[in-house]
Amino acid sequence: MMKKNIPEISLQRLPVYLNYLRSLSGDDGKYISSGSIAAALGMGEVLVRKDLAYTSGTGRPKVGYVRTELIAALEDYLGCNVKKRAVLVGAGELGRALLAYGGFEKYGITIACAFDSDPAKAGGEVAGKLIRPANETAAVLAKEGIKLAIVAVPASAAQEVCFSLARAGVKAILNFAPVRLKAPDGVVIRDIDVAANLAVLYNMI
Amino acid sequence: MMKKNIPEISLQRLPVYLNYLRSLSGDDGKYISSGSIAAALGMGEVLVRKDLAYTSGTGRPKVGYVRTELIAALEDYLGCNVKKRAVLVGAGELGRALLAYGGFEKYGITIACAFDSDPAKAGGEVAGKLIRPANETAAVLAKEGIKLAIVAVPASAAQEVCFSLARAGVKAILNFAPVRLKAPDGVVIRDIDVAANLAVLYNMI
Repeated sequence: MMKKNIPEISLQRLPVYLNYLRSLSGDDGKYISSGSIAAALGMGEVLVRKDLAYTSGTGRPKVGYVRTELIAALEDYLGCNVKKRAVLVGAGELGRALLAYGGFEKYGITIACAFDSDPAKAGGEVAGKLIRPANETAAVLAKEGIKLAIVAVPASAAQEVCFSLARAGVKAILNFAPVRLKAPDGVVIRDIDVAANLAVLYNMI
Repeated sequence: MMKKNIPEISLQRLPVYLNYLRSLSGDDGKYISSGSIAAALGMGEVLVRKDLAYTSGTGRPKVGYVRTELIAALEDYLGCNVKKRAVLVGAGELGRALLAYGGFEKYGITIACAFDSDPAKAGGEVAGKLIRPANETAAVLAKEGIKLAIVAVPASAAQEVCFSLARAGVKAILNFAPVRLKAPDGVVIRDIDVAANLAVLYNMI
């Protein structure tokens, strides 16, 4: 796909709008204004209008956006209608939960399979998804042309896994190992350190 | 605890430094400079020095920080040595994985127990942690004085759960439900939408 001309911070907010709009029902009316989206999400109206302008969603004076059209514009912009596959590396507790997690489908993402370096785990299945031996990773990725990966291995293994995924053609990695990964050239990475997030919240009380 | 005089963005980076410093071994030398931390993490040296100055960690001219002292300063600042308990609400796939996840302990956080509205799940255990019926939430939180909660319920239930946790004295919520929660007064919330993060990455390829 083509890199889009949108600031990352705006891009990150698009799923927030989409989640909110999807949570509304027909009873909430045909139209929705940027002001009511902003109020519901606790954001500024100008910001909301600016973010939504990156998609093809354009509001109409006085009435706002047609809700279903705005949902379609956001889904289209985010590529939800483009079927794409991801792999998961590391079928420990968190990895298994992510395999079973249904939330990816609404963005058009299917987890194809998982990989684990523990031979005892290989051959197993979670939610119908096969756990394959780690040494098959490169071959499977190349064959299927998969560009997305989720990493849920221990911190000590994560950087090496990241490099091998990049060599096998992966372009984007969502990393749950509690370590900040160095991104190989041409690869985008987002680190989510669950425990650190909770520790930071504790410090904000 | 007392609110600290540190920008949230700096606070969020402290666990990144801590993870990195913990990953080094004695063989990496007694001292570490802000420059080498910055290089390892792909950040600016001035930023690193500024962030670390919020903790009591102070570098020495020419040699830098004593690594073990800097680790101790970060752990102290983040409250890792203060034992605190959290609860988890929603013992579905993701919730169960979080119960089994060992990463919280290194920040001094123990998950005391989980709650689930499904009577079939109540009474069960994951990783030695009891799943209790949802209607016991307020009583347990009040009795134990717990201020931290992790929410892993479906999106449609998350806001109501958040309000009841706040009424029961919770001050910080880490939310995995794919919905942006409105924070009740005096409560800090961090939303982690796993699927949205992967979808955003796909758009950055």
